[in-house]
Amino acid sequence: MTGPLLLADWGTTNRRAWLLDGNGRKLTSTEDQRGMLAVPRDGWEAAFEELKHSLGSPEPRLSLLTGMVGANRGWRETPYLPCPVDLEDLARELCWVEPGSVAIVPGLAYAEGDAADVMRGEETQVLGAVAAGLAPADCLACLPGTHTKWVVVRDRRVTAFRTVMTGELFALLGTHSILAEQLRDPAKAGPDFYAGVDRGLAGAELTADLFGVRARALLGTSPSANGAAFASGLLIGADLRAGLAISEERNVHVIGRTDLATLYTAAIERSGYTATPVDGGEAVLAGLKRLAELTK
Amino acid sequence: MTGPLLLADWGTTNRRAWLLDGNGRKLTSTEDQRGMLAVPRDGWEAAFEELKHSLGSPEPRLSLLTGMVGANRGWRETPYLPCPVDLEDLARELCWVEPGSVAIVPGLAYAEGDAADVMRGEETQVLGAVAAGLAPADCLACLPGTHTKWVVVRDRRVTAFRTVMTGELFALLGTHSILAEQLRDPAKAGPDFYAGVDRGLAGAELTADLFGVRARALLGTSPSANGAAFASGLLIGADLRAGLAISEERNVHVIGRTDLATLYTAAIERSGYTATPVDGGEAVLAGLKRLAELTK
Repeated sequence: MTGPLLLADWGTTNRRAWLLDGNGRKLTSTEDQRGMLAVPRDGWEAAFEELKHSLGSPEPRLSLLTGMVGANRGWRETPYLPCPVDLEDLARELCWVEPGSVAIVPGLAYAEGDAADVMRGEETQVLGAVAAGLAPADCLACLPGTHTKWVVVRDRRVTAFRTVMTGELFALLGTHSILAEQLRDPAKAGPDFYAGVDRGLAGAELTADLFGVRARALLGTSPSANGAAFASGLLIGADLRAGLAISEERNVHVIGRTDLATLYTAAIERSGYTATPVDGGEAVLAGLKRLAELTK
Repeated sequence: MTGPLLLADWGTTNRRAWLLDGNGRKLTSTEDQRGMLAVPRDGWEAAFEELKHSLGSPEPRLSLLTGMVGANRGWRETPYLPCPVDLEDLARELCWVEPGSVAIVPGLAYAEGDAADVMRGEETQVLGAVAAGLAPADCLACLPGTHTKWVVVRDRRVTAFRTVMTGELFALLGTHSILAEQLRDPAKAGPDFYAGVDRGLAGAELTADLFGVRARALLGTSPSANGAAFASGLLIGADLRAGLAISEERNVHVIGRTDLATLYTAAIERSGYTATPVDGGEAVLAGLKRLAELTK
């Protein structure tokens, strides 16, 4: 089979896409803010046509889309496959929007006792990281973000995962809370950040410690302190406490955005673990390519 | 000295005030939403005149105000007295806006090691609860709210306290977060609430457990569950974990709003402690009356 391949990571807020030729070589790519929230409910066909246009108006042999494009508010709702799931089995479970030519990757679900969790899009990044040799077939992956995911991979199968609302909470606190004024500076790894990480890792009470950020500013007890770094450390420390507990691995593959991934890497090393960075764009592209190969 | 007494609890959002005669009998009272946020920076004199008008235009012998009216964004910034503080000493530290006739109660500060905390207004409620015999001179008080306060009182002195951002976080999650849809129902004490309280008390990772509220709704694994009750339980459980730890007391005096105080009382009893409810309005009025007596 020949003809170009369109691969897209279509998330809540952002969208990135690549056009590859029949040999898997990159022809064009695009990245914009036309994520799910920017697409009207009945505007998905038009948004897809417009995406093709921005890639040079190809007629792809196959288009594979991953992320929130498969949510109930997306183009077509795809199921959540219950874990454990062999990542390459995602190719057999694609949800076809146009049979044989346009498909959406399903999400994953994890339920165990009281725990319940879901993901959409991150499974494709983990598949790609493993398929491209950026992470081994047995690993613990961390995907920092609005909803950070911790994913346990055993022999290429996702056996468990856990979501932590770190990024969303930090954004809410910085935008709408009484701490907003103290959270203006960029959060950087340094003494304030590590003080927060240590508290978070130790299981200190997050909702009490957060108010301390404001109290210290009002009392002027730490005039040079960076409240954003401390609060970010508290949240990421609590995040690590939740995420590191789901696996025996001592090394974490951190897949994702550079700034946030840098903070997670610093916190992971602070906790006595090691971290291996993996580029998120490279991972999702490799995952979509692998699914396209398996769909031939 | 004779002439009426004007007593006001002037908070961030709300304001309540009482007019008493020279013998301490209630003449009139008022309650409205003209809290600090509704008063322009240079509008405090006018807001105070208007408060007197709504109490029947008296010329009070003495007006005592407590709460955020003493914040940097309030009428006149009052200091935070460092703990330990004998509650009756507040009378000696009043901040006079008009010498001899209008005063604002100072706040309290607590700093110990890395911990830093502040309060404004709650100290007057605790003073009143003790002065009126609603709580003993040695007690652990809990004042549920936007920023819940836990206050250790020893021989009428505040020796330590801790603030937890429970109410503010619950409101942020219900208004601006991805959980908003799942948090619409009123939170009531029941199986979902207690399941959350148990997780929170056990020190489970709050920011991870919160995402489970959404995952369970998406997976339909607990169709009858009340997400608001579970999330509220998680936050209140974590709150109790922080607050109960600052004292050896096994009984908690819960001072405050009825609905929220009811949830805290249920959670405190779930944790094996006992709770004694104290009316917040009665407490703050008693505290202001006691300060007026001491100011004679």
